[in-house]
Amino acid sequence: MLICTVNSNPILKLFGIKYPLIQAGMIWCSGWRLASAVSNAGGLGIIGAGSMYPEVLQQHIRKCKAATNLPFAVNLPLLYPEIEKHIAIIIAEKVKIVFTSAGNPALYTPILKKAGICVVHVVANQKFAKKAADAGVDALVAEGFEAGGHNGKEETTTLCLIPIIKVAVNLPLIAAGGIATGRAMAAMIALGADAVQIGSRFVMSEESSAHEYFKHAIAAAKEGQTKLALKSLTPVRLLDNPFAECIHMLEKQGASKEVLAEKLGRGRAKKGMFEGDLIEGELEIGQVSAFIDQIMPAKSIVNEIINEYNQTISHIATQQY
Amino acid sequence: MLICTVNSNPILKLFGIKYPLIQAGMIWCSGWRLASAVSNAGGLGIIGAGSMYPEVLQQHIRKCKAATNLPFAVNLPLLYPEIEKHIAIIIAEKVKIVFTSAGNPALYTPILKKAGICVVHVVANQKFAKKAADAGVDALVAEGFEAGGHNGKEETTTLCLIPIIKVAVNLPLIAAGGIATGRAMAAMIALGADAVQIGSRFVMSEESSAHEYFKHAIAAAKEGQTKLALKSLTPVRLLDNPFAECIHMLEKQGASKEVLAEKLGRGRAKKGMFEGDLIEGELEIGQVSAFIDQIMPAKSIVNEIINEYNQTISHIATQQY
Repeated sequence: MLICTVNSNPILKLFGIKYPLIQAGMIWCSGWRLASAVSNAGGLGIIGAGSMYPEVLQQHIRKCKAATNLPFAVNLPLLYPEIEKHIAIIIAEKVKIVFTSAGNPALYTPILKKAGICVVHVVANQKFAKKAADAGVDALVAEGFEAGGHNGKEETTTLCLIPIIKVAVNLPLIAAGGIATGRAMAAMIALGADAVQIGSRFVMSEESSAHEYFKHAIAAAKEGQTKLALKSLTPVRLLDNPFAECIHMLEKQGASKEVLAEKLGRGRAKKGMFEGDLIEGELEIGQVSAFIDQIMPAKSIVNEIINEYNQTISHIATQQY
Repeated sequence: MLICTVNSNPILKLFGIKYPLIQAGMIWCSGWRLASAVSNAGGLGIIGAGSMYPEVLQQHIRKCKAATNLPFAVNLPLLYPEIEKHIAIIIAEKVKIVFTSAGNPALYTPILKKAGICVVHVVANQKFAKKAADAGVDALVAEGFEAGGHNGKEETTTLCLIPIIKVAVNLPLIAAGGIATGRAMAAMIALGADAVQIGSRFVMSEESSAHEYFKHAIAAAKEGQTKLALKSLTPVRLLDNPFAECIHMLEKQGASKEVLAEKLGRGRAKKGMFEGDLIEGELEIGQVSAFIDQIMPAKSIVNEIINEYNQTISHIATQQY
């Protein structure tokens, strides 16, 4: 078997990790337990700060540092109300890698870069990819329509998005959305990505802080049971449940933004994903939930994906014409 | 370079072709000129019968046979009003391969099979994949959300659909939707498909009968400029134009099926795709239109894709861990 040196893949070099496999930072699911387990398995684990008060984030960073000597990152949604407190903690705790999302990277990228932090921004279209590059980020995550949680208005799928971003911006590129297996990882590397970011599959890890009820609902999910909702506010992919059905119904009836925002209210994601309210809660998950049935240790997920990836690469090497 | 023998890929064996690259049968775009050019280049060309009267189909089949000695196919939308006349012509003209779509394969598959015809059915979900397998088809096309034209209600993207269909049904599998390059072809083979079907890229061939104005509109199209419309009737991916905008507006306002069907009327696809009416016509095209800029001979498209595919396979062979 060929062994890829760290230097041959820009993402491995940038982060100092073994495999080009990144665990997405996810609200209510990815705390220090999951992030450190993925980093210890050779990928890059990410703490999802979007669902944490500043002091909670600080605790998670400290526990993560205690649980692994390997690189990990923090995901920072830029629209978070106490973002400046988050950034101060990230800098004070000497976090080395930050993934930013959901907002304009122009304001905070220079602050993070000045503190010596490697900055990666999540985008769903070419326009924001170029903005992020102009802001000075070190790499991009391009996330397609099939991804769980917040999503682009263009509805561009991962298969179409990666070539669009690759041509537009000359930065290391991480593919996200629709990736849960080694085969899909190999597909994304073939398509031109340098690495993959995987969310839903890690929601279904033992170390994820998703509520057991939510995990069981994901295991039971079939194709067509996630849908993009709230397109007029911020598009978000949700697992079908009574709350999501209600939103879809309102949207079909042509409900206004205000009506939808009122129905959404506050705290729905916590209620669903963390507290396990499968009726009234918001359940963010990707289309790949259709074929994720098992809850596994994060390390086993990483190993399974990398093994299948290597087998796939060996197999297709014989398929030339 | 390794040379793949015909027998190692079930699609090559089934169709007797050189490359696992199939040109989608497309209304108003793929007549005998395009189909024969693709078959002569080593792929499988398909005549799109859905926009042809029976006698027109017969002429296209005869001209295709005169233009190539290599295998070609006919695509047959099963909801076509004069389907039995189409089938009689296909059998009388000894067409060897038929791709069926848009309808239930249970009724016509046995008739085609009895005539010694290889039958492939196009699906967008597991349920219809199983129905098609039960009906006795020889292979499946699994077509994702990003594809142009008619589309599944589940909105499952190609990246998520291929693994779902592969697990559900043990038949040779052709991936469709979002594929326009050799890299994307390699990605689909890595994901587990045996072959790819490519539509939009061949609309942009010299041999396609799409109107020049439509081709120029595709060349100019950017990301986010196709959208899935008419979800309450039959979902269809359309290029943005005044007609599509009107449909999207009606849908946002919660218009009934009847209102939408009346606005759609009849003959819109011909008007747009064949006659070049970019205002009032229906323009069916995939998300990949965002990065297809050139009109090329079909042979050059096939060669470019296969060359890039082979380069991609060689490159990723070094990317193991």
